[in-house]
Amino acid sequence: MIYLDNSATTRPNLQVLESFTKASSQFFGNPSSIHGIGMDAERLLRKSREQAASILKVQPNEIIFTAGGTEGNNIAIKGTALAHQKRGKHIITTAIEHPSVLEACQGLESLGFEVTYLPVNAEGFVEAEYVKKAMRKDTILVSIMHVNNEIGTIQPIEEIGAIVKNYPKALFHVDHVQGFGKVPLNIEKSHIDLCTISAHKIHGLKGTGLLVVRNGVRLFSLAHGGGQEQSIRSGTENVAGIVSFVKAMRLANEKQSETASNLTELKKYLIEQLQSSAKVKLNTPANNSAPHIVNFSVPGFKPEVMIHALEESDIYISTKSACSSKSADESAVLIACGKNRSIATSGLRVSMSYETTKEEIVFFSQQLENVIQKLSEVMG
Amino acid sequence: MIYLDNSATTRPNLQVLESFTKASSQFFGNPSSIHGIGMDAERLLRKSREQAASILKVQPNEIIFTAGGTEGNNIAIKGTALAHQKRGKHIITTAIEHPSVLEACQGLESLGFEVTYLPVNAEGFVEAEYVKKAMRKDTILVSIMHVNNEIGTIQPIEEIGAIVKNYPKALFHVDHVQGFGKVPLNIEKSHIDLCTISAHKIHGLKGTGLLVVRNGVRLFSLAHGGGQEQSIRSGTENVAGIVSFVKAMRLANEKQSETASNLTELKKYLIEQLQSSAKVKLNTPANNSAPHIVNFSVPGFKPEVMIHALEESDIYISTKSACSSKSADESAVLIACGKNRSIATSGLRVSMSYETTKEEIVFFSQQLENVIQKLSEVMG
Repeated sequence: MIYLDNSATTRPNLQVLESFTKASSQFFGNPSSIHGIGMDAERLLRKSREQAASILKVQPNEIIFTAGGTEGNNIAIKGTALAHQKRGKHIITTAIEHPSVLEACQGLESLGFEVTYLPVNAEGFVEAEYVKKAMRKDTILVSIMHVNNEIGTIQPIEEIGAIVKNYPKALFHVDHVQGFGKVPLNIEKSHIDLCTISAHKIHGLKGTGLLVVRNGVRLFSLAHGGGQEQSIRSGTENVAGIVSFVKAMRLANEKQSETASNLTELKKYLIEQLQSSAKVKLNTPANNSAPHIVNFSVPGFKPEVMIHALEESDIYISTKSACSSKSADESAVLIACGKNRSIATSGLRVSMSYETTKEEIVFFSQQLENVIQKLSEVMG
Repeated sequence: MIYLDNSATTRPNLQVLESFTKASSQFFGNPSSIHGIGMDAERLLRKSREQAASILKVQPNEIIFTAGGTEGNNIAIKGTALAHQKRGKHIITTAIEHPSVLEACQGLESLGFEVTYLPVNAEGFVEAEYVKKAMRKDTILVSIMHVNNEIGTIQPIEEIGAIVKNYPKALFHVDHVQGFGKVPLNIEKSHIDLCTISAHKIHGLKGTGLLVVRNGVRLFSLAHGGGQEQSIRSGTENVAGIVSFVKAMRLANEKQSETASNLTELKKYLIEQLQSSAKVKLNTPANNSAPHIVNFSVPGFKPEVMIHALEESDIYISTKSACSSKSADESAVLIACGKNRSIATSGLRVSMSYETTKEEIVFFSQQLENVIQKLSEVMG
C-alpha cells in the first residue's frame, strides 16, 4: 500500500499504540482520585504534560489536552469570543482556514459576532499588511493557520504575530495541525496566545490533541465540570491517549529536521515529474510551502475518477481536505486563491509523512502518468 | 487489588482494549476520505453507530459520539442554550447534578441565562411536582441525572419526562452516565431529548462517550468543522475509540440484568454490615437507588485517612466524586440532602461493577471495621 493521504490522517505508529495499551491497562485510575491508583495515573499525566511543554517550549500549565484539532480550534475561537465579547466582537481570519475555524467563525456570526475573512494571493499567502489594516479597536481575536492543509502554504506567522502583539485586546491563535513535526514554529517568538495541534496527523491516535493556552489568556470554557485542564477543558483525562500522543509528538519532534529534509527532496522530485506532464497544473507554492504537501490539478479530469484509478495500483491520495471531501465539488481553498473553476474542481493532494519513501513517490509518479494517459485515451 | 471506585472510572475490559488496538491498526483511515481506506473506516463506524442505536432503541443518526460524559453534558446544555436563547433563557436542573452539569449551568448564568436549581429531599430525590412548579414559559431545558454519582439515588425520570413533554419549548436532558448498564432507562418512553453516556464508567476507554440527540432537536454546535456527527460534533471520528466503546456498551448491556441482580445482592450484604456498625451512617437511599453505589459517613473520621488506611489492604474506595475530590472538603450532594457538616465531610463511596465479587465485599467489610476500630483506638 502506498498511502499518500497523511494530511487526512496517518497510520498510528506501533510504539504509539503500544504506549496507549500499556497505559490503558497499567494506569487506568482516574487522575482526580485521591488513592494510589489515581495518583499513579496523575503522575503519568503530569510527566506527559511536562514533555509536551518542553517540546513546544511553553509551561506545563499552558498545555490543555483535547480530543483533537477541531476541538482545539473551537475552544480557542469560541472560548475567546464568549469570554471577551464585552471587549469587542470582531474576529479576523483568512479565507483558506480549516473548516473547524471557518465554521466556528460562521457560528459566531449567528451569535452577533463580526468576522473579517482576509483574502489570500494566488499561492494562498495572506499578507501581514492585510492583517494590520483589518485590526480594529474591537478586534478580540486573529486566527491564522500555520500550514494550509490543502496546498501547503506556510503563512508568515512571526510577522503577523509582531503586528497582533501591538493590540493588547486581541489574542493570536494559530492552527498548527499541519505544521507540527514538519515546519518549525516558535510559539514564544511569534507572540502566539493559542496554538492547536492534533495527534492523528503525526502518527498518533485519533481522539487526542492539545491546545496551548498561554498564561494570562482567559477563555470561556466549552467543557465545564471537574476543573481538569486548568478548568478550560473539564472531563476525566484520557491518560492513555495523552501518553500516546506525547509519544507521537516526541517521535515527530526527534525526526523533524531529518523528516523535513527528506520530504523536501521527495517534494522536489515529485514537482519536477508533475511539471513535465502537460496536463498537470501545480497549485502548491514553489517557495514557502510545507515539505509534505503537493497539490495539483488535472483540468478536465474528475478527481474522484483519478483517485479510484490510482487505487487500483494500491495508491491512496485525496481530493481536497478530508473534512470537506464529501461536500461541494470545488475546493474553497483553490477558489480563494483565484483559480478558475476547471482548476478548482480538479485538485488532487499528495500528502506525505516520515514514513514515505522515494520508491513510493517514484511509483506514484509513474502510475499517475499512466492514469492520465489511459483516461485521455478513453475520453478521446 | 480490590477496586471499589468504579463510579470514578473502571478498568478497561480486555476485549474492549483489543477491539481498540485492532481497529487502530487495521482501520486507520479517515472516514471522510473517499478512497477505500477511508471507506473501510466509515463502514466500521456506521456499524458501530447502528449497534449503539439498537442498544439504546434510538435511530443511528441520533447517536453523537463524543469524548465522554462531560463533553456530552456540555453539548446538551450549552448547545440548547445557545441555539434557543431567543425562545427563552431559563433552565431547570437539580442541586445534586454532576459538576459538568452544574458548572455548565453556572457558566451560562455568566452569559445571562437564569437557572433554577431544584432542591432534593434527604435521600437525594427530586420531586416531579417541583419540576412542574418550576416550569415557565421561557424554560428551554430541563437537565436531570438518572442515577446520582455520589449516593446512587435514581430519579423519577419517566415521571419528569411526562411533565416536560407538555412544554414543547423545553428540551429534556438526562445524564445517564452512572445509570447505563446498571439501571434500565427507556429513552423513548421517558420523552428524553438528550441523553449522555460515558465509556470509561462501563469498562470502556477514557476519551469516548456519546450523546443521544433525538431527531428534530436543534443544538448550537460546540465543535464546528467538517460536519461529522450530524454537524453537532465535528472532528475526525475516533473510529477505534468508538468501536471499543460500543463493544463496552454491548458487554454491559448483555450483562445488565445479571449485573443488577448480583450487585443488588452485594449491596444488600454491604448495607447490612454497615448498619451493624455503630459508627457508620448510611447515605444511600434504602429504596430506588442504583445497585452499584453505597455511600456512607463515619462522622469524626477524616475520609482521606480512611481511604489511605484501606489502601494498606489494597482496597480502593473514594470520598465523593472524583470530579470534585480535590476541591472543598464537604460533599455538595450530602449538603443538598440536608446532612449536617459532620456527615457531609466524612462521606465515603463504594462503587462496584460487574467485576466485583462477594469475596471482595466481605473482605472490604471486615477491613473497614478493622480500620474504624484501630482509628478509634488511636483517637482514644
